[in-house]
Amino acid sequence: MTFNAVQPVDGSVYGEAIHENTQSEVQDAISRAKKVAKEFASLSPKATAELLRAIADSIEGKREALVASACAETGLPEGRIGGEITRTTVQFKLFADLVETGRHLRVVIDKADPNYSPAPRPDIRRQNQPLGVVAIFAASNFPLAFSVAGGDAASALASGNPVVAKGHPAHPHTCATVESAVKDALKKCNLSEDIFNVVQGVNPQITHWLGSHPDIQAIGFTGSEAVGRILIKISSEREVPIPVFAEMGSLNPVFVTQGAITERSTDLAKGLVDSALLGSGQFCTKPGLVFVPKSASAFLDEIAAHLATLKVGPLLSASIAERYSKAIAQIAASGAVKVLSGQENASGFGVTPTLFITDWATAQKNHELLEEHFGPTSVIITADESEYVSIAEQLQGQLTATIQGAASDNVASLLSLLSILSERAGRVIWNGFPTGVAVTEAMQHGGPWPSSSTHTTSVGIDAIYRFMRPVAYQSFAQDVLPPALQDSNPWKVEQRIN
Amino acid sequence: MTFNAVQPVDGSVYGEAIHENTQSEVQDAISRAKKVAKEFASLSPKATAELLRAIADSIEGKREALVASACAETGLPEGRIGGEITRTTVQFKLFADLVETGRHLRVVIDKADPNYSPAPRPDIRRQNQPLGVVAIFAASNFPLAFSVAGGDAASALASGNPVVAKGHPAHPHTCATVESAVKDALKKCNLSEDIFNVVQGVNPQITHWLGSHPDIQAIGFTGSEAVGRILIKISSEREVPIPVFAEMGSLNPVFVTQGAITERSTDLAKGLVDSALLGSGQFCTKPGLVFVPKSASAFLDEIAAHLATLKVGPLLSASIAERYSKAIAQIAASGAVKVLSGQENASGFGVTPTLFITDWATAQKNHELLEEHFGPTSVIITADESEYVSIAEQLQGQLTATIQGAASDNVASLLSLLSILSERAGRVIWNGFPTGVAVTEAMQHGGPWPSSSTHTTSVGIDAIYRFMRPVAYQSFAQDVLPPALQDSNPWKVEQRIN
Repeated sequence: MTFNAVQPVDGSVYGEAIHENTQSEVQDAISRAKKVAKEFASLSPKATAELLRAIADSIEGKREALVASACAETGLPEGRIGGEITRTTVQFKLFADLVETGRHLRVVIDKADPNYSPAPRPDIRRQNQPLGVVAIFAASNFPLAFSVAGGDAASALASGNPVVAKGHPAHPHTCATVESAVKDALKKCNLSEDIFNVVQGVNPQITHWLGSHPDIQAIGFTGSEAVGRILIKISSEREVPIPVFAEMGSLNPVFVTQGAITERSTDLAKGLVDSALLGSGQFCTKPGLVFVPKSASAFLDEIAAHLATLKVGPLLSASIAERYSKAIAQIAASGAVKVLSGQENASGFGVTPTLFITDWATAQKNHELLEEHFGPTSVIITADESEYVSIAEQLQGQLTATIQGAASDNVASLLSLLSILSERAGRVIWNGFPTGVAVTEAMQHGGPWPSSSTHTTSVGIDAIYRFMRPVAYQSFAQDVLPPALQDSNPWKVEQRIN
Repeated sequence: MTFNAVQPVDGSVYGEAIHENTQSEVQDAISRAKKVAKEFASLSPKATAELLRAIADSIEGKREALVASACAETGLPEGRIGGEITRTTVQFKLFADLVETGRHLRVVIDKADPNYSPAPRPDIRRQNQPLGVVAIFAASNFPLAFSVAGGDAASALASGNPVVAKGHPAHPHTCATVESAVKDALKKCNLSEDIFNVVQGVNPQITHWLGSHPDIQAIGFTGSEAVGRILIKISSEREVPIPVFAEMGSLNPVFVTQGAITERSTDLAKGLVDSALLGSGQFCTKPGLVFVPKSASAFLDEIAAHLATLKVGPLLSASIAERYSKAIAQIAASGAVKVLSGQENASGFGVTPTLFITDWATAQKNHELLEEHFGPTSVIITADESEYVSIAEQLQGQLTATIQGAASDNVASLLSLLSILSERAGRVIWNGFPTGVAVTEAMQHGGPWPSSSTHTTSVGIDAIYRFMRPVAYQSFAQDVLPPALQDSNPWKVEQRIN
């Protein structure tokens, strides 16, 4: 069986047909990965860092081919794809910098203490160890940064786990090129190419074959709540359940104060619409719910006027475009909302950006208004500013939550709102827009359910801790201990010695 | 409804009847805890540390009453209970020392950087925040250290979460005394008593009421795999699933080399039997599987001789004693094992310590031999030392795995075995016994499934990280940021500034 890449810009086939992997091929990829797991796990931090940098260089070396295929397969503009390639290589380099210090091993050495209370304690030394073969599921909307060698795969590899990644069928040639780049880097570092494997296809069974295989030890996933729940169910039905690190999207509420509108209404209207339409509204951090004071009708006019000038690129796939158009039509037909439209894109998987205006009472009665709709849409909800705190208390878990305020706002009210939002979200933002996730150590990309399945982050260097577990070594002689735990510290890793 | 505490020593009722909590009382305890969650979460590290030390002092102040009730309710000796009280207070003090540094908040500050690659980065600051009300399920076998104010509750409180703890019906008076001790400490610190609540009863519905309540944000549990699986199922069926930190027991395999037997056969035989019978074999770290070389028949005779002299205290409850006796009788009747017995304890919930000897081929055919049986029993399996690595590869996840070896052993063989065991267990031990878990920073008490449901530890100060999640603050002004994230660092917590 084969399947084809399709160009969102006009619906035409792109490139040669791609082989769809069979069950035995998927199993074979996992078995080969498992065979090299132990050797890969024992690599020194220095050697691992070298590999990560070699992967970054190898991906960089294929920039031209990646820009060509990713632009064709996703319909995203060249500037965006170029930035994503850079982000992807930066991710590998940041993990290389971290791994080189050995800090991710979180080594703790508690030397024996005969006077310890409540009982004498033996020598105990702990380090983080990789889990084994990790299955990664690529997202549709970031053909590089959240795809087969995106943040999930980079963090799994950085922590010493072989990876079997399922390519997203919306950008298979890009996945294949990335696979060859990573395998080139493995070869260059004299490591087995079986450490990194990509499987491809449109058959939904591939997800089951991967997630249910006993040699898979963890799952990294970025995508819809529906598929996230399927993976969690697959894991729970295994003889040995495994952790599923699923990032499942978010409404990313934005609360706008009257102070902010008074101070910078035009910039704010433009910024909000641009953030909602960025990448044709296909970001998990898209502001999908915007709360504005009831008195803000002039501000809403500015939003409407800016939106009316805008056209967005086609959506990533025919099915995403269809789901979007159907949801938009349904909400518009419900009659309980005011509809604001941008310019139509009639070719390929093009759609019309559409915002809705309603009030909080109506939104509560119409659950579609409080659900995530992938694509260039957002729901603007008018409410009394004094209601913001109680509204925030009713929201589900979110990746982000934003306050657009001003120095003139009441600080006590802001603090109350911020306090609630910090309980509901993984990242809270002041006077910014949620799209655009900096890859830094302090970043948290992951919030309470249903935005994420665990309290971890899938962006930033702390993503690495998802794919390791601590192991304590009690009373072992120096020459038997893993290198990172030895007193002589041959790997020169950070050791915390008590 | 009421229920009674029963004395294992003779099966008689102990103390007054205990009120069994109703559904509305359980819900009320959760609601009250939820009401004070925000205030408790905002406590300074210093104030939290003061509370933790006050709890330790308050428990210490009730030592006499606790020894009396816990000895009566569990049948465990006074020395053991005394040590457990000390361990319980030490746990609170260790968390106080940690919390005071603020290190558990894992504060990271990435200041704004307009030149950051791949894109300018805003100011992002991250800290760990408590999850909300935590449900704790007390274990039967540690009436203090793993009970309502044991390591799970201490780590949940230390990280700023109110606790609703289900007392174990095998030691209700002890649970009630601990509850009053913690509430006294809360009062002394001018904090709401609703921060800590104990619910009690024999009705299994209490577990469901607690675990399924929407205001419960996480579960800490120590007990059987059966109940652990029930809690995980309850969580998965909630509208919002929550993390279940379940420690579900383990076989704790011990691999004995010929070198070790040659070097110290008498000490080893004695040590193994004593470890298996410690606390009447009711430890989750009991060595339940012991592998010895086929040639070790004299060593097995030493084990038999030592066991024959030993009698153990009664088991914790009638049902535990019944399950034990039934399992022992079944295995003995299977005929495929050699049975070694200790001395009978015929009163109350007394039983006879019983070890089994078999070979690996037989054990593989009889799954009861490779399952955990709570109580003073262990299965000794003879095998070729050259088979140890392949046997280890077939074992499930374990809390601990031990090698009893000698300097004369082949180092390469040891390293192979250690490597496999470190993939199967949370703690690997050289020439020690798995019972006795030091409460230190490097300790890891939690291994791969089914010994634990997650890759966390329930003993040692890292247990605190189970009950917090990271939240990132982007671009907020200093006066709105949480204290731990401010440049002026009013709480003087450890900040990592990039």
